[in-house]
Amino acid sequence: MPPSPPDGQVMVRVAYCGICGSDLHEYMAGPVKIPVEVPHPTTGVQAPVILGHELAGEVVEVGPGVTGVTVGDRVALQSLIGCLECRWCKSGLMGLCPKLAFLGKSWHSGGFSAYVNVHDYMCYRLPEQVSDEIGALVEPFAAAVRSVREGQIKATDRVAILGAGPIGLMALQAARIAGAESVTVFEIASIRQELAWQCGASDVVDPSKRDPLEAALAATDGEGFDSVLECVGSSETGILAGRMARRKGRVVIVGVFEKPAPLDYTDLVFGEKTIIGTMGGFGVFEEAIGMMASGRFHGEPLITGKIPLGAIVASGFEALVHEKERHIKILVRPE
Amino acid sequence: MPPSPPDGQVMVRVAYCGICGSDLHEYMAGPVKIPVEVPHPTTGVQAPVILGHELAGEVVEVGPGVTGVTVGDRVALQSLIGCLECRWCKSGLMGLCPKLAFLGKSWHSGGFSAYVNVHDYMCYRLPEQVSDEIGALVEPFAAAVRSVREGQIKATDRVAILGAGPIGLMALQAARIAGAESVTVFEIASIRQELAWQCGASDVVDPSKRDPLEAALAATDGEGFDSVLECVGSSETGILAGRMARRKGRVVIVGVFEKPAPLDYTDLVFGEKTIIGTMGGFGVFEEAIGMMASGRFHGEPLITGKIPLGAIVASGFEALVHEKERHIKILVRPE
Repeated sequence: MPPSPPDGQVMVRVAYCGICGSDLHEYMAGPVKIPVEVPHPTTGVQAPVILGHELAGEVVEVGPGVTGVTVGDRVALQSLIGCLECRWCKSGLMGLCPKLAFLGKSWHSGGFSAYVNVHDYMCYRLPEQVSDEIGALVEPFAAAVRSVREGQIKATDRVAILGAGPIGLMALQAARIAGAESVTVFEIASIRQELAWQCGASDVVDPSKRDPLEAALAATDGEGFDSVLECVGSSETGILAGRMARRKGRVVIVGVFEKPAPLDYTDLVFGEKTIIGTMGGFGVFEEAIGMMASGRFHGEPLITGKIPLGAIVASGFEALVHEKERHIKILVRPE
Repeated sequence: MPPSPPDGQVMVRVAYCGICGSDLHEYMAGPVKIPVEVPHPTTGVQAPVILGHELAGEVVEVGPGVTGVTVGDRVALQSLIGCLECRWCKSGLMGLCPKLAFLGKSWHSGGFSAYVNVHDYMCYRLPEQVSDEIGALVEPFAAAVRSVREGQIKATDRVAILGAGPIGLMALQAARIAGAESVTVFEIASIRQELAWQCGASDVVDPSKRDPLEAALAATDGEGFDSVLECVGSSETGILAGRMARRKGRVVIVGVFEKPAPLDYTDLVFGEKTIIGTMGGFGVFEEAIGMMASGRFHGEPLITGKIPLGAIVASGFEALVHEKERHIKILVRPE
């Protein structure tokens, strides 16, 4: 148990914390985002740290000066910790803070433990319709909601999602909730294709069996998609996302790219297309929780494992590495 | 002299017609956009055609049904010929017409001749303050104005222009007229650097002598540019344009890329940047002419040659190929 929370912080007892791709990245190739040599400029934290930032739990203690969060509140956590002083933090875009810190990476505690102390502004109250398990999906789902918002997806839009991993499936649901006329999912793994159907895809295309660009045109009367959400991050999918968009269409990059990848700039010019990048769900947590509370978001198909903290390496990280396609979101509960 | 103009068309006596990079492309590697095997679906035209689409002249005859254009009008021509029936033509975005034709490529006549017959809607009247020579710059300058508009450049913005060729120098002027706080031009050729200064650059950086990304940060208090206009189209400049933009910044692609080129998608995501493509000046011709008439646009430094039509190969095309950096815009006049 951590010490009592200091000024402006609260202590949360963790109910569930999901394993994110970025946690896996730290496990496999880290430290990546964890400060090692120099303390983080905003939090003063450096390794070792506790991983985990997709969590829901209950507030068990509040520090001095905390308002708006009360002992007993069930909350989901927003994972960004900004400097609170830069133009981005002050304009509601904390995700762009040049000194951004992350819960579970550059913060002293993380969700893969029994308790965490966090800033009060990181807590979003969960209504009773949202279970602890679903609450642990708020953080990634908010990122998906934000990508749909940045894609300006509206009721008449025909949307494409590249990749039916955790973010792709959540973006699919968020696009459906935003009222998209159709959502076509492009995914190679058959188990994830099945999940895309369960999550409300209008159509699912296997790009290993059918030319994805041809399928895109066939799905849209030859026009291309109004919006394309790129949720893979590979050398082929960025350029493909651009080409799949219609004239004046929007491409939202959500996937994590290891290195620069090709783009068809000429196609961008002649189609006057727009490509935007979007990072995290800051600013739309209430909206995401509201979609969950209203029953329009279906988290169950996405939770492919619930494991105790002691099993996190064997049944969590290693399962995600070796049975990648079978798993979407594994939730970890403290023992 | 062509036949009398048919319904809805007018005959223009050419005063000057500029040589565009796309004309050079047809000369060097054509036919590129000129229909050879099959007539163009909108115009029914196929090779041989007369090149040239950046022209100003005088209306000498109007066909039946023409309103709004009168014999004696001095005009600049807009070069796009849409189907007039698709969603794009109907919504004021003719440049996106799937059956788009081009004056001087897929139209029976072009500006490298004494007379052209064109649709009445292609004519934009020139006020007396705009000379024939400057009038021949309207078409490319409108494209530059549109790129600045799409870049949403406003009075407090710090702007970068990559490349000081014809479009880069015009975009520089358009950005200045839009009120940009500063415009930094990145250009390797010394003769073009000099022209950038003449056209109002706040600073000119030679990327062969100074790391352009470092220069970009130095010019913007470490933030990056609000807007970056990419006017080169090389394998290095697309990715560089993206990286030079600030968080939430806008990158406008104007350059012509021969093939796909790298983009730093991760930088796009973490900076939540926007990249857009823009094509041609349709819709802003009056605005461009207005800027010329008010004296805020300086065309003289851009006109590096005026030649008779009979010299177009030796003193036009070949000069642009072999003395590329010395020339911006060569104007051709009929004899």
